[in-house]
Amino acid sequence: MEIRSATILGSGNVAFHLGKALVQNGIRIDAVYGRNQNHADELANQLHAKAYADISLLSSASDIYIICVKDTAIEEVSNQLPKVAGMVVHTSGNTSMEALWKHKRRGVLYPLQTISKNNSVDFKNVPLLLETKLEEDIEALKFLAKAFEAKHYIVDSEQRKIVHLAAVFANNFTNHLYSIAQQILKANNLSFDMLKPLILETAHNIENHLPHEVQTGPAVRGDQSTIDKHLKLLNEMPEYKEIYALLSKGIQSKGGL
Amino acid sequence: MEIRSATILGSGNVAFHLGKALVQNGIRIDAVYGRNQNHADELANQLHAKAYADISLLSSASDIYIICVKDTAIEEVSNQLPKVAGMVVHTSGNTSMEALWKHKRRGVLYPLQTISKNNSVDFKNVPLLLETKLEEDIEALKFLAKAFEAKHYIVDSEQRKIVHLAAVFANNFTNHLYSIAQQILKANNLSFDMLKPLILETAHNIENHLPHEVQTGPAVRGDQSTIDKHLKLLNEMPEYKEIYALLSKGIQSKGGL
Repeated sequence: MEIRSATILGSGNVAFHLGKALVQNGIRIDAVYGRNQNHADELANQLHAKAYADISLLSSASDIYIICVKDTAIEEVSNQLPKVAGMVVHTSGNTSMEALWKHKRRGVLYPLQTISKNNSVDFKNVPLLLETKLEEDIEALKFLAKAFEAKHYIVDSEQRKIVHLAAVFANNFTNHLYSIAQQILKANNLSFDMLKPLILETAHNIENHLPHEVQTGPAVRGDQSTIDKHLKLLNEMPEYKEIYALLSKGIQSKGGL
Repeated sequence: MEIRSATILGSGNVAFHLGKALVQNGIRIDAVYGRNQNHADELANQLHAKAYADISLLSSASDIYIICVKDTAIEEVSNQLPKVAGMVVHTSGNTSMEALWKHKRRGVLYPLQTISKNNSVDFKNVPLLLETKLEEDIEALKFLAKAFEAKHYIVDSEQRKIVHLAAVFANNFTNHLYSIAQQILKANNLSFDMLKPLILETAHNIENHLPHEVQTGPAVRGDQSTIDKHLKLLNEMPEYKEIYALLSKGIQSKGGL
């Protein structure tokens, strides 16, 4: 089944980047719904679509209705959306497909990538985690993955929550560690640039190795003297010291491996 | 000042990768010293050099003597090395140059990169942190950086210890988080492959943005409901739960920003 037209519900980062990718891949955006008329107008303009601040006015002519609102609002928006013939999906990693219980043709299209205002997103590098209620609808979601030239994985709601949790470790927390490294350097008038090749290499190492196979550093070597020196250097930064101690302990116990 | 020949003291990962890079860039390795004769022989063979297990037999003909042994052995090896005309450097991030006090022409050549047995190292992507006792020797170390086509930074011993500390956050700890993510997926029979694009994108995001500018996820959004769900999913993995709670707290307090 082909997807030729879509309605986007929401006007945040995911709505913006996903909407743009749909348009670029030849899928027409019929409408953008947003509670805030200005935000809806702005995104609709960029997507050559009509803007709606009243959800009851949305037409039922789209092939797919993509709900890109914050997790806590998904069910409410789904319930307010009039009955439609097209498929209704949300884009959340951490919300059950059943939040869309009102719609028979329901599903999930979770883009497993870090999406923020400040960077562009190439959907070729965005694995799409797909779920549907009716088996025949999976072809519709696969059609989108194919249009985006993206990899797709079919996972149920419980599995997707696990993937989302793992993604928090792999992205949110690693980015926070980059931030800590940058803050430590800045506090000492040293350039973050010198760390960038290390950060890139660390990420590229997992392409062909399991992370624990390429673990380096004082903790995995059991070099307690260096760990103690580092903890002392962090005396003035108690938050970072606590993180250092806990993660070093985790590496030494091999993270439960 | 040009460096044409080197003696390597040590036979571990750094000795191996650095020695290989020296040979590839036209610098002759005169000798490899290792306490373990077999290890010294093996590395010396690969570098077309002579192997020594007795440090007192090393000739004084090399332009540079590069000590690549574990931090706690650097001073001892430096003291055992006969007086030489060439420069003596160590490669440690966390050891003062003064550990080499016995040698007048002393310095540091710290490769700021993750170097493990399991991966190859392209020294073009290895920032070299340089320090020397005598100002005129800095040219010798810069010559090596140039031969490697590597960026170099001149930092003193105290600064280098800070950079090494920051590197532990940026590399050792992020790699441990990758490992946790992989373990969480494995425990649920899910493929680590689906996370790889996210990991790469997270690392590439810091090329043009400060890390805190591209922070995403439940903690920075203040989405306590998702955080609570994730903590519950980690009930059976108390080590990971503790790390999740502490890093989320850190992101919420913006890591002291």
